[in-house]
Amino acid sequence: MNELGLVDMLRRLARPGKGKAPGMVLGIGDDCAIYRPRPSEELLFTTDQSIEGVHFLPEQRPAVIGHNALARSLSDIAAMGAEPRFCLVSLAAPAERGEKFIAAFYRGLLALARRSGTVLAGGDLAHSDRIYCDVMVCGSAPRGKALRRSGAQPGDWLYVSGRLGKPWGARIQPRLAFGRVLRGRATACMDLSDGLSLDLHRLCLESGVAAAVERVPVMRGATLERALHGGEDYELLFTLPPAKSPPRGATRIGNIVKGEAGVVWFQGQPLAPRGYDHFARR
Amino acid sequence: MNELGLVDMLRRLARPGKGKAPGMVLGIGDDCAIYRPRPSEELLFTTDQSIEGVHFLPEQRPAVIGHNALARSLSDIAAMGAEPRFCLVSLAAPAERGEKFIAAFYRGLLALARRSGTVLAGGDLAHSDRIYCDVMVCGSAPRGKALRRSGAQPGDWLYVSGRLGKPWGARIQPRLAFGRVLRGRATACMDLSDGLSLDLHRLCLESGVAAAVERVPVMRGATLERALHGGEDYELLFTLPPAKSPPRGATRIGNIVKGEAGVVWFQGQPLAPRGYDHFARR
Repeated sequence: MNELGLVDMLRRLARPGKGKAPGMVLGIGDDCAIYRPRPSEELLFTTDQSIEGVHFLPEQRPAVIGHNALARSLSDIAAMGAEPRFCLVSLAAPAERGEKFIAAFYRGLLALARRSGTVLAGGDLAHSDRIYCDVMVCGSAPRGKALRRSGAQPGDWLYVSGRLGKPWGARIQPRLAFGRVLRGRATACMDLSDGLSLDLHRLCLESGVAAAVERVPVMRGATLERALHGGEDYELLFTLPPAKSPPRGATRIGNIVKGEAGVVWFQGQPLAPRGYDHFARR
Repeated sequence: MNELGLVDMLRRLARPGKGKAPGMVLGIGDDCAIYRPRPSEELLFTTDQSIEGVHFLPEQRPAVIGHNALARSLSDIAAMGAEPRFCLVSLAAPAERGEKFIAAFYRGLLALARRSGTVLAGGDLAHSDRIYCDVMVCGSAPRGKALRRSGAQPGDWLYVSGRLGKPWGARIQPRLAFGRVLRGRATACMDLSDGLSLDLHRLCLESGVAAAVERVPVMRGATLERALHGGEDYELLFTLPPAKSPPRGATRIGNIVKGEAGVVWFQGQPLAPRGYDHFARR
């Protein structure tokens, strides 16, 4: 199959059910996709790369690679309490892995797209010596309602969804429903994609506050070390005023406190950010 | 410099001038960027990959790599007669090329972004063994006014902007002003990114028509072969009803005709699509 044939295949696979793509005026097949916004909405944009040998290993199942490539970006949409609308998928793959790999990759990606209400609206295909992909997702939220990292206040209580320490390469489940429940309640929210210690440091920097962590919900089989610094959790990290009750499945891990912006304490000791940094000197 | 440091540097570099980012509510630094659409606008989305060894060579100047990475996507925005609003830039680079490469790449990209009114609103950074980037651009057009590939009619005259046959690796100049002039005039438009023979085939397929090409404006130093099948022109290919005069700098190359959808004739002979196909068997 050549590039035109692949694009035709994707067009058929990506066709949403009737009435299932609100706002989408034009999808795959032209120079651009076209979206007609509703008057009351704000649009959110995020993009995440998935690179062979960096984010996944060559032996990973292609359908899981596709699923996780979309899930990483959906997790950012969840972190802002938004609903996904559509995605653009850029994929480069070795010609010898060919259409079989590409078909399985999109099967995994499109299954999650359908479940989450995300339309595949376009993208780019190229050949390369390794698998690279980059998935852009556009989400929607009512005006002024998106959750940010920057609103945490001293005195807020600090929570995470789920349990931490997920093993590398696991299937990522973006917390879309959880994020929507937090909209209008949480003072700050972000997803855990580089490890609690680094991501909490970032949230505190953006909010101009410090944090004191007392306990962490460690998942079965994981170490505390991995729960504090591992980078594959894709759970939500968020803050609520003490009066607000958290959604089901949340664990309170500590408090937002006054102090130097970005400083994180764990059980009374300073916790250096050691999560995943692509450009740290190793 | 680590990843946080790089993101800080990009935030400073990307800050648009006062009043220069209409609609942009939140840029680099959170999980998503936020855009507030105006009531009358439709948004256009495109993404294009630039991969070392595929789209450019390692010895190419980093600033030109950055310029061209954005220019490829802006060319798609131009082809639909839209105005660029913002971009998301995903970049993966070997750690050893480091911050020097990254800074020069963004210098080239941001110079073009400023000139074209495109805000850098976010993206993703990762390390990898080759340079890979993917640039998503969001553009804006008045409702229902974006140019498509699918409106060419038998009897329309066929044009290109500029001259064809540009050498591989040259600096790409997206035809944004030209595209905006075509809005409301052209029946179909697309950019030439994979060569005239393949791209015209695609335009004809989408419009359900055939085309007869009589002449092609070949640039100085290029061959007719390259002008017909080369993939680096990034000029606009468009159709006008015979009564409409083309913008300055356009050359009429032939006509849209009745016939099997997608068939292209050159001086009376069928012209097989031989432009750049990433998944053609080579």
